[in-house]
This record gives sequence, structure tokens and C-alpha cells, in this order.
Amino acid sequence: MSNKKILILPGDYIGPEIMAEAVKVLELLRSEGEALEWSFGHLGGAAYDAEGHPYPASTQKAAREADAILLGAVGGPKYDELPRDVRPERGLLGIRKDLGLFANLRPALAFDELADASSLKREVIEGLDILILRELTGDIYFGQPRGRRTTADGHAEGFDTMHYSAPEIERIGRVAFEAARKRNKRVCSVDKENVLETSRLWREVMIGVAKDYPDVELSHMYVDNAAMQLVRRPKQFDVIVTGNIFGDILSDEASMLCGSIGLLPSASLDVNNKGMYEPIHGSAPDIAGQGKANPIATILSVGMMFKYSFDRGDIATRIDDAVKQVLKDGKRTGDIAAPGETVLGTQAMGDAIVEALRRK
Amino acid sequence: MSNKKILILPGDYIGPEIMAEAVKVLELLRSEGEALEWSFGHLGGAAYDAEGHPYPASTQKAAREADAILLGAVGGPKYDELPRDVRPERGLLGIRKDLGLFANLRPALAFDELADASSLKREVIEGLDILILRELTGDIYFGQPRGRRTTADGHAEGFDTMHYSAPEIERIGRVAFEAARKRNKRVCSVDKENVLETSRLWREVMIGVAKDYPDVELSHMYVDNAAMQLVRRPKQFDVIVTGNIFGDILSDEASMLCGSIGLLPSASLDVNNKGMYEPIHGSAPDIAGQGKANPIATILSVGMMFKYSFDRGDIATRIDDAVKQVLKDGKRTGDIAAPGETVLGTQAMGDAIVEALRRK
Ligand SMILES: [Mg+2]
Ligand SMILES: [Mg+2]
Repeated sequence: MSNKKILILPGDYIGPEIMAEAVKVLELLRSEGEALEWSFGHLGGAAYDAEGHPYPASTQKAAREADAILLGAVGGPKYDELPRDVRPERGLLGIRKDLGLFANLRPALAFDELADASSLKREVIEGLDILILRELTGDIYFGQPRGRRTTADGHAEGFDTMHYSAPEIERIGRVAFEAARKRNKRVCSVDKENVLETSRLWREVMIGVAKDYPDVELSHMYVDNAAMQLVRRPKQFDVIVTGNIFGDILSDEASMLCGSIGLLPSASLDVNNKGMYEPIHGSAPDIAGQGKANPIATILSVGMMFKYSFDRGDIATRIDDAVKQVLKDGKRTGDIAAPGETVLGTQAMGDAIVEALRRK
Repeated sequence: MSNKKILILPGDYIGPEIMAEAVKVLELLRSEGEALEWSFGHLGGAAYDAEGHPYPASTQKAAREADAILLGAVGGPKYDELPRDVRPERGLLGIRKDLGLFANLRPALAFDELADASSLKREVIEGLDILILRELTGDIYFGQPRGRRTTADGHAEGFDTMHYSAPEIERIGRVAFEAARKRNKRVCSVDKENVLETSRLWREVMIGVAKDYPDVELSHMYVDNAAMQLVRRPKQFDVIVTGNIFGDILSDEASMLCGSIGLLPSASLDVNNKGMYEPIHGSAPDIAGQGKANPIATILSVGMMFKYSFDRGDIATRIDDAVKQVLKDGKRTGDIAAPGETVLGTQAMGDAIVEALRRK
């Protein structure tokens, strides 16, 4: 079996620091005999600095050849004044589009050791484990026509187009049902079917896809109600599947239920489960270069990579368990430390996780 | 001074029961000398039953002549099989549109006595008092074109149009700034300016409106971040202003922070502050006719009517205080009773509030 090829894109600000800890995990796994190889590339501001473009040709080539991509985080104040089309976020949109990464997987997990850090009551979130599947390449974020026009009575008007085609809905639907099969076999499709035409087609197609998955239960919920239910009783959900804009809102809301977004990984997959994996937190310019950043979300992203792109759920579980172990042992970075707790730096936290992983 | 004319639309299921208690409040105020008169009409399923249409001509006429409208709740299973254009919800959309009710005011209030009923920690919501202003007549819920079409490669596609014109944004902006002036003088405008053209105009216009209100602080927040921040630290907000679809999602999310939606009133205003006032909860078919429904949200809606349409904030405050008093006295309907607490019926709760109001 040939090596799995991983492209590593550390990105900006804390990106390189947290990625260095993820690489320690890869090194351990390779030392155990896993057939892995990796290389490094530039994305975002770092790519602009090095090659004049946030998603340069060199990265493009490497990304296409890789089996999976690990990304740190991109963006930050240094790049805020750049022209819109070379800003770091453009690099992110560029690589997603280039690789056809249409399925964004956003787990919302509560680690029981940190449940008290949430603004929700412990009993509401303890044991929380939901997966939000957001379609990432369509919807109103990309729809044409869009722009500015003048109304019949002479006023400025801004407009955008929401749309989804049946195949776009079907492919994200299949990812949701496949994921649910490996979990608790329940998919909740979120739409606004009572008012949007796009949502009517969305619901029809989901009902059609469900016929191929008789072992998975499909339910439907309006997006406003879903925003309520995530606060009221989040544990009612297993897999939530929704479009780009609703998924943007709901996945961010859900991430906040858990108390620390420093812990949450994410994946963006193409039709063959090739994927890009990254923490949901940003590049944290305020703490960059200080060795303070929490590497856990990046390390859990490595776990997701093994689970979804390499079909190695066993390694993902080992990584998850190693993280749980260090949290249980009371190890904390600054962002998740309660008053009075001893704070570890980025490297010490990474080393602790690698050490726990070695023993699992 | 001529009497203020109120049109009362009890609506469906629990609607008449909760409205009967609101009428007791009106009766007390009239007995104290307030110049009020009211009449009753049909809306929703009740209107369909009585007159064959969810917003019949008789109601239309009375609504146009009224100074303000009190609504119970509409809809329910009895009407689910009706053709789409005579369903109860159509009555609601019809009256909003007919009267030009473009500004939806959704307070999210935590009553300290009930803070433990929230899924959020007491300290996160204690003293919470935010006002969400949702534009109600524009945006993607009404935008044309919309429908179903076939893509170039022969697939079904659903599509909708989001749009806002400068005057539409400006008028809801002014309502927000005026409201903030009577509160804590902070407006947070929520949009998705980084990806939507509609949001770019939205933000430009809001910045323009703010120039007329130098005493009010304007901030901007992306909708996905707002959905997070409402969970993380909801007390950071004073007035939130946003478009129809974002407001639908965020106001429902915010209502859930408070623990019981049985307590939350709402208002929908036209350009002259004529308004329709209603609880945000629905018609609760499961408990209709049993004398169990909580009349508090409807009674608080009466308070909002005095504040916003009749410019009588003093009466609104008396009503709010009366409700707080009965909650402090331990009076609870079933939906807000903790285990072991004595439960009052709809009428007993209404009587208790009237009695408290008499003494304020
Ligand atoms: Mg987001
Ligand atoms: Mg709603």
C-alpha cells in the first residue's frame, strides 16, 4: 500500500504553532508503522507573503496531488488592507472551490471535563455529540445574479440569489445519511420550506435520498426552530444537514454550546472523501508567537482526517481518547483553564497528548 | 381626547382563553379612566370557520380603523388540510401586509424568578433585557423572482431572491435607533456583509442613519457570530436590528434563552407606530379548552401596545411590574411551574395579575 500523502498548510499567526503539535501526532503514528508522508505549503497571508497570492500555483498543484490536507488558520490584521482578491480568505475559498470541497462537517462535542466552561447548564450539554453538515459551495453565498440596482422608484437596492439544484442537494444528503449510519442513525434536515422555494426542493430531494437509507430516520425542522432547539435541548440531534447559509449560522451557534471553540475540529470533503481538515477557531493574532495557543482542535482535526479520508476510525478514536485523557488529567491551555488551574503552553499540551496517544 | 380603539382578534385554540385575561386588564384600565374602547374580530382559522377567509373583509375594515390590534394566536391541526391560500398563516401575512407592519419588535427578557427554567446558567441570563428588531415585510421571504427552473444541464433547481432597498433599510433602522434612545443607547446591526450584496447596502444605510443619532452607539456583527454571541454572552446586547430572515432565526434563538416562551410578547408596527401585538407562542392545540394556558405573554403584549402605539410607557411599566409581582409571589401556570409548585389555571393567573395591577 502506498503512503497516504498529506499536505500541511500552517497558515497565519498561531497557525504554524498549532500545526507543529499536529505534526508530532503524525510522527508518532508513522513511527508506529502507518504509511504516511507529508509536505508543507502556503495558504492565506503566508502564501501572499511568500508567493504573492493567497492560493498560489505551487499550493494548488500539491493540494491536487495530496490525499488530504491539514490547515492551521488564515487571515489577520497584517492582511486586512490588501485588495479583496488577494486577501487570505480568498485563498480559503479558492482551495475549497478548486478541490470541490462541498461537504463541511462540524462536530459539536462537549468534553465533560470542560462542561462548566459553557454558558449552558452542565446537564444540558454533558455528553453532547452532534454533527452538523453544511453544504459549502452553493446557496446564496455564490448565487448569481447579485449586486446593486436601482428600483423602479429610483432607490438603491442590493440583491442576491439563493439557489440549489437537485444534484447539489442529493450529494450533501448522501454524506449526511452515510455519516448517520456510523453514528446514531438520525438525520435532521434543516430548511425554511414554509417560505422558500429553494427549501421546497431541498426537502423533496432529502425525502428521496432517505429512501436509500431505510435504516436511518429522517426528520425536518425549520431553521428558526433549529436555532431555538440547539439552545433548548441540543442533545436531541444526531446529524443535522443544511445549506450553506443556514449551516454557517447553526454550526457557529452549536460550537458555542460546548464552552470552548479552541477544541473543535472540522472537515471539508469532496465527492471521494478527500478532505481538508482544520480547527474552527481563527488565527488568533493577539496570542501569536507566544506559545499559548491551544493545539487540541488541530490535533482532533488530524483524527477526523483519519476517520473520513483514510477510513481509519480506529486512529480517530485513539486521538479522541488521548485528548480526553489529558483533559481528565487536568491539563489545560490558557483558553480552557479555570481560575487557579495550572496553564500549559502549546508545546507542553502537544507533548502531553502525544504521550497519552502513545499509551493508548 | 377620543377613545383609543383596539381591535381584538382572539384567533384559534387557546387564543380566546388567553385573550379573555388580557381583556380583564383593559377593563381595569378603563375603569380607572383610560379612554379605551374595543371590539372583536376574526383572524386565522376562526375567521375561515366564520367567514370563509382567514383575513375577511370585516376584519380588514376594523383593522384599518383601529388604533391598535391585539392578537391571540392562529393556526392548528384543524386547518392543516386547507388549501394553502386560506390557511390561518395567510391571515397573519395578509393583515401584516395590508397594514404595512414592517417593524417586528421581539423583546427577550429574563424574569429572575424563572431564570432556573432556562437551559443557560442563571448568571448568563439574569437581568437579560434585549430587544430584537426584525424587518418583517421584505427580504428573501417575499423577493421575486422565485420558483423552480431547470439548470443548463437539465436538473431541477429551486431559487429565491434576497433584496432590500435603501428606504426599507432606513425605516427599520430609524425604529431601532428610536427604540435604543429609550433604552441603553446601543444598536447592533446584524448582517452578512462579507458575502452578501444585500448586506453591503444594509450596512451602508445603517451607517448613514446613525449620523442622525449621535447619542446612540452603532456596531455591526455578522449573523453567524450573532448566533454565537447570543449563547455566549447575551447581555452584551441592547437593541439588535436585522432583516427578515436573520431576524426570524435570531429572535427565535433569543426567545429560548429566557426559559419560557410563554412569557414573551411581540409587536409589529407601521410607520406611524400603529401596531399589532401578540404573544410569540402559538395556539397550543394540545391544551386548548382546558383552562391551562399561560396568559402572561398576551398581557405583556397589552403593555407593549400602551408603550409603542399609545406612548404610555407608564402603563407598560405598571403591567410589567404586576407580572413580576405575581411571579415573585410564586404564582405559576403549568408551563413555568417547577416540580412541587402549585399550578394556577389561565383565569386564576389573569385575576392575580389584574389584582397586582390594581395595587400598582
Ligand atoms: Mg461562520
Ligand atoms: Mg420564527
